[in-house]
Amino acid sequence: MRIDSAKSSQVKQVAALQKKARLRREQGVFVVEGLKMVLEAPRERLLSVYASDSFLEESGEEALKGIPFTAVSDNAFKAMADTQTPQGVLAVVKTINWKREDFCGKDGALLLFLENLQDPGNLGTIFRAGEGAGVTGILMSRDTVDVYNPKVIRSTMGSIYRVPFAVCEDLETVLAECRKVGITSYGAHLEGEKNYEEADYGKSSAFLIGNEGAGLSEKLSEAADFLVKIPMEGRVESLNAAVAASVFMYEAARQRRQKQGKINKE
Amino acid sequence: MRIDSAKSSQVKQVAALQKKARLRREQGVFVVEGLKMVLEAPRERLLSVYASDSFLEESGEEALKGIPFTAVSDNAFKAMADTQTPQGVLAVVKTINWKREDFCGKDGALLLFLENLQDPGNLGTIFRAGEGAGVTGILMSRDTVDVYNPKVIRSTMGSIYRVPFAVCEDLETVLAECRKVGITSYGAHLEGEKNYEEADYGKSSAFLIGNEGAGLSEKLSEAADFLVKIPMEGRVESLNAAVAASVFMYEAARQRRQKQGKINKE
Repeated sequence: MRIDSAKSSQVKQVAALQKKARLRREQGVFVVEGLKMVLEAPRERLLSVYASDSFLEESGEEALKGIPFTAVSDNAFKAMADTQTPQGVLAVVKTINWKREDFCGKDGALLLFLENLQDPGNLGTIFRAGEGAGVTGILMSRDTVDVYNPKVIRSTMGSIYRVPFAVCEDLETVLAECRKVGITSYGAHLEGEKNYEEADYGKSSAFLIGNEGAGLSEKLSEAADFLVKIPMEGRVESLNAAVAASVFMYEAARQRRQKQGKINKE
Repeated sequence: MRIDSAKSSQVKQVAALQKKARLRREQGVFVVEGLKMVLEAPRERLLSVYASDSFLEESGEEALKGIPFTAVSDNAFKAMADTQTPQGVLAVVKTINWKREDFCGKDGALLLFLENLQDPGNLGTIFRAGEGAGVTGILMSRDTVDVYNPKVIRSTMGSIYRVPFAVCEDLETVLAECRKVGITSYGAHLEGEKNYEEADYGKSSAFLIGNEGAGLSEKLSEAADFLVKIPMEGRVESLNAAVAASVFMYEAARQRRQKQGKINKE
């Protein structure tokens, strides 16, 4: 089978999935672009794969490593793609529902609570850095930018497949449940009572990161066990949300390596 | 004086400065948008300030705190602005040439070498996080995205005015000069011989960060005193360049606070 026309119903369907969060939610699917994103997708979650004529000409079928695909004219592919200079491969992928036990981690939980993050690049970058730092799960408030937004997907660089995450009706409720199972929570706050490196993240911990402009809401700040700050030189008022989250997560990772005797100080 | 027409020569001039790096370089100026960016600019570097009718109606002249400005019709302002929903204030600002001694810092240099960074958001975010972490200067290779690109300016959130920086013909030569004055250099490299937290950044240090896709060039990697890596869990191959730079800079800041007895561990 192949698709020639940019007006084919399949092309329109994929293009609509790229644009509409509601449609993605209803159908329980999302779209990924690029060879890396297609190859890293768990095979059982790949619903359909499309490759453009140009891609097949340049890279050959073998680039897809045996994954079944539909060939598509360049024109039709362009109509499906979210990127301006599409790589020529995309896939419709089934969403996944992570289970509560997926979020625990073997060396203690390291959770990230994201409240009302709006920048797709920030959210994707946090997934990527989160996987790198060994985060065991990401919990997002309902008003956070859709995690299946094409720009978010792209900036995760594949971490979207591997970091357990959930969108929560009410972060405070989840935080209260976490406290019951021994997870200590730290809200990133400009008026934090101590510096972020002064807390001990060796035990099960959760970091709370707020909206890019407004920071953590008062409600979530009050729900946190501690408020901690990243000290700032110069006249900087706050850090980019992805940078702040990464500084926290990598400090936790560093402390955990130190605890396990994995650091050889020069 | 006021400007009504989007075709006025001043409007065209500003619009051209937004788009063309060459023009900015020739005239030694750049454009900043938004009230925060205008108010934070050193007054002696503000060449001309423009405010739209809507802005003046909503915020009033007093928002500009006595800075002389030209009123501009909304239509003309839109033609000058780089952003799609302009805030209604922009300024043409004189570039600055930092002097060598500006890069030293009082507690020892903390330099960042950026090689061929291409994403404007990354570069701006690095300036912002760099000022926050106490970086004493940023050195960029000639092929790095133009620091006066409107998107870079925007993501610096004002740090562009305060962090000393220079574009260098040849980073290796500058690195060799740094070594002579006792600055140790650390290249961020996936194959670094040790973890980043195992080095001592208490003394004068420089971090080298490479291009988003390709990482540090072989040439610059060889010129570094040490190659260090950020340990990565999961299947993450590399971190976003701004995240990697921030993790390094904040680890240096943490070590320096610790050295000065400024950390009270819980």
